[in-house]
Amino acid sequence: MDIQALVRKLKIRNESKIVMLIADGLGGLPVEPGGPTELEAAKTPNLDALAKRGIQGSMNMVAPGITPGSGPGHLSLFGYDPVKHLIGRGALEATGVGFKLGPKDVASRCNFCTLDAKGNIADRRAGRIPTEESAPLAVKLRAAKAPGVEVFVEPVKEHRFVVIFRGDGLGGNVADTDPQQTGVPPLAPVANDQASKRTAEVAKQFIAEARKLLADQPKANGLTMRGFSAAPSIDGYDEVYGLKAAAIAVYPMYKGLAQLVGMEVIGQPATLDEEIDVLESAWADHDFFFVHFKYTDSRGEDGNFAEKVKVIEQFDSIVPRIVALKPSVLVVTGDHSTPARLASHSWHPVPVLLVADTCRPDGLTAFNEREALRGGLGHFPGVYLMPLALAHAERLAKFGA
Amino acid sequence: MDIQALVRKLKIRNESKIVMLIADGLGGLPVEPGGPTELEAAKTPNLDALAKRGIQGSMNMVAPGITPGSGPGHLSLFGYDPVKHLIGRGALEATGVGFKLGPKDVASRCNFCTLDAKGNIADRRAGRIPTEESAPLAVKLRAAKAPGVEVFVEPVKEHRFVVIFRGDGLGGNVADTDPQQTGVPPLAPVANDQASKRTAEVAKQFIAEARKLLADQPKANGLTMRGFSAAPSIDGYDEVYGLKAAAIAVYPMYKGLAQLVGMEVIGQPATLDEEIDVLESAWADHDFFFVHFKYTDSRGEDGNFAEKVKVIEQFDSIVPRIVALKPSVLVVTGDHSTPARLASHSWHPVPVLLVADTCRPDGLTAFNEREALRGGLGHFPGVYLMPLALAHAERLAKFGA
Repeated sequence: MDIQALVRKLKIRNESKIVMLIADGLGGLPVEPGGPTELEAAKTPNLDALAKRGIQGSMNMVAPGITPGSGPGHLSLFGYDPVKHLIGRGALEATGVGFKLGPKDVASRCNFCTLDAKGNIADRRAGRIPTEESAPLAVKLRAAKAPGVEVFVEPVKEHRFVVIFRGDGLGGNVADTDPQQTGVPPLAPVANDQASKRTAEVAKQFIAEARKLLADQPKANGLTMRGFSAAPSIDGYDEVYGLKAAAIAVYPMYKGLAQLVGMEVIGQPATLDEEIDVLESAWADHDFFFVHFKYTDSRGEDGNFAEKVKVIEQFDSIVPRIVALKPSVLVVTGDHSTPARLASHSWHPVPVLLVADTCRPDGLTAFNEREALRGGLGHFPGVYLMPLALAHAERLAKFGA
Repeated sequence: MDIQALVRKLKIRNESKIVMLIADGLGGLPVEPGGPTELEAAKTPNLDALAKRGIQGSMNMVAPGITPGSGPGHLSLFGYDPVKHLIGRGALEATGVGFKLGPKDVASRCNFCTLDAKGNIADRRAGRIPTEESAPLAVKLRAAKAPGVEVFVEPVKEHRFVVIFRGDGLGGNVADTDPQQTGVPPLAPVANDQASKRTAEVAKQFIAEARKLLADQPKANGLTMRGFSAAPSIDGYDEVYGLKAAAIAVYPMYKGLAQLVGMEVIGQPATLDEEIDVLESAWADHDFFFVHFKYTDSRGEDGNFAEKVKVIEQFDSIVPRIVALKPSVLVVTGDHSTPARLASHSWHPVPVLLVADTCRPDGLTAFNEREALRGGLGHFPGVYLMPLALAHAERLAKFGA
């Protein structure tokens, strides 16, 4: 069943306010057998108080066993089937540096590489050239033109940058030019379908121009292009849910993901406290607020259990400021698990807590992975979180008579 | 996966008997935080005794967050995907007054309205004309003919009535004639597809005839037609499940829904006790019995927690009479939740109890929403209830070798 299509028909606009508070990579794992997860180890009196009023569950963002990237994790939270609406890697990288993709854009993740005298790749990452050297080179490439299209080049980090072509008739289905080995030249861009022929032609011209601009570089004298992709065509929150939605985030990637689903990115917060300042000041202006906290994921990715516990406690400490705003529905969860023990995203389900006057409490008294297993929402796919939030905000009409 | 298609291939006929005992709108909500739901507050010694022998679970009838109407709620109980088999509003209204729709029928819910001298709508509901005035007018409209089709007109309540056209080539896709505002004339019936052109033409002729018959009425001198729909084309219980099924209900709507899936409506009971009398006397004649109790929903819709508790206790009191018949499988559940606190249908999951000698008990000792969360059937979509009932009746063969 296409749950989003159903929700779209049943939506009701009302005065309720929904907050989706996301601790990125929230779910964890014990380090020792029998030990607590990061969330279980953390002192979270505010979240535990909410657990008494709310209802918990365990979410699989994509499917059991599947580890979500940030794109699929967030799309699922936002109620969009993450397999159907896969965001291409070029589009995600552009989004991640804060570039707002339009409908005529095709983006590609690029690497600087080192070419030898014969034009073969000697180093696929240009010796992992540091950002302070590579960023000016990426800016220099803005001078590389391709006739009939606009070209945007954005630095990323080390050997990575993004190129966006903007123009009519640019399909996103072009093969990577990175041959994934050294001792051979980069591949020519090849269109995988008729609609992408012009994109391949444009890429070829851009590469030729870029090679000239980089010719005198000792390390970064070549480039490869990968993950060509158009912006996904997604109907936004207002159209689908009838929600005027705002996104509050520190990192560009999450602002970009929110923009893709039609949220308005508000404020320029640099800390979680500042994010809540933005939330408070914009409270009257929106129906739905996505608030993103990054550091639970970062400390998980670092493999630092103790620090992940600490940032979870910091996350808990701002909860009273949100509760004081009296949202009709407050959802607290993550976009995937990032157990410090694995130092990476993982497939483990994400605990979720939904608090609303309309919820049927499940008798739990703490919010964490173990409790969530016994929660009233059960185990469910992440794409059902938005329908549940809307239902508890009384924003969905009865289905059928 | 199409579970019904799979079950259909695996069905086995045997001598087992299955009873599906439905307390409409059974699921509830606490009124006070931390308080009991209606089912938790009710004294239900008989259901609790069954809980010790049976297995519980929590069902979403359509999907998490979706509030089911009576049609989708029952279709899901009966094992039919309620999104795929949506019953049109006209067909449901006809069903609700006990009209047995055939394959050549198109039904429409109609309103009497008041037209001013210019033919504009002055009151969309004819001043909510009382049933004792409107019913004879609906009967009078049986004289309105449309060439080449049979016309049936059935009174409903107040300003509402149902019109059914029976004939060849009548599609159900005609737009509503109610303009949803006053000061403008009713819209002409317009076909939304080629197959419904004849229906629109027939409706136009019927309306012209009806207007003549109503011309001298002070309030109900006009009509609007809405929710045109053909009877859903559904394979019945015998064909799908190999069950000779009977329906025992007091209200026409539930008799109608059962008929749509090929159940035989038996008896003319007026009370729950009489429903069980019918069950006892027909015990030898059928494999499957759907027994419908209405008042849990009615008291929920009234917003009357105490009265809903009382009717749940009344419901509990008849359970021993059913147990005494020794059904192979007894299922007790609702078609949706109707918490008194919300005074309406809701999206909250429905607790379900399945009792059979073949079930693997889950150690629970009471039947209610909170216990059901921990039940052995887990959280599952309503359409899996019939496969579970059949399995426990040993009516499904092994899938694959």
